[in-house]
Amino acid sequence: MSKKELPLLQPADPAAPCCSPLAREPLSGAEAATLAPVFKALADPVRLRLFSLIASSAGGQACVCDLTVAFEVSQPTISHHLRVLREAGLVDCERRGTWVYYWLLPNALARLSALLTPAAAAA
Amino acid sequence: MSKKELPLLQPADPAAPCCSPLAREPLSGAEAATLAPVFKALADPVRLRLFSLIASSAGGQACVCDLTVAFEVSQPTISHHLRVLREAGLVDCERRGTWVYYWLLPNALARLSALLTPAAAAA
Repeated sequence: MSKKELPLLQPADPAAPCCSPLAREPLSGAEAATLAPVFKALADPVRLRLFSLIASSAGGQACVCDLTVAFEVSQPTISHHLRVLREAGLVDCERRGTWVYYWLLPNALARLSALLTPAAAAA
Repeated sequence: MSKKELPLLQPADPAAPCCSPLAREPLSGAEAATLAPVFKALADPVRLRLFSLIASSAGGQACVCDLTVAFEVSQPTISHHLRVLREAGLVDCERRGTWVYYWLLPNALARLSALLTPAAAAA
């Protein structure tokens, strides 16, 4: 399955300072167009809870079997929301035997966090 | 105009440690329902750029006259997007003479940032 990571702001080198915070200089149109779908992926209560469940799972990985039972929505609906999170570059997954396991792409979270860091704190 | 702030996670006391990071423990349904509209407000390229323009303005405030000329969309469209940002508790505004001035509600940004801080960094 997809190994893509969030195509966010430069630089891509994880050792380098990450991202121009939203509050330090105006986003370009291209940056905004890249970021908006990531925020959109998090703009749904079920997806936010799925994302949080995956992120806080023991070992950093969550079986789709555990994710599905945590919600009172259908399994296809959960699958749809997981696909949206994956396509936004926020999580990735892998099938192991019967079940699919999800984990967070940590750079995605770190970059969003860096982007939102208030200017005073980032300076 | 509205002085409301982002009704996010407890505690509201700005001196206290803010928010359970998304990656540290699962969000409750109520927390997710409160947060999703904030992410939705940022899930549009024009709103992201408006938010960033306001956040990075000299003096921390932006005149709507300057915001409008920065985009190739109509003034009513800009007004709509600014209203969405304001209703999400991300910005506030005040009329001074002819123009309305917008500024960031800093707690909103700080709380979103804290929420997204990776578990390892938050620990």
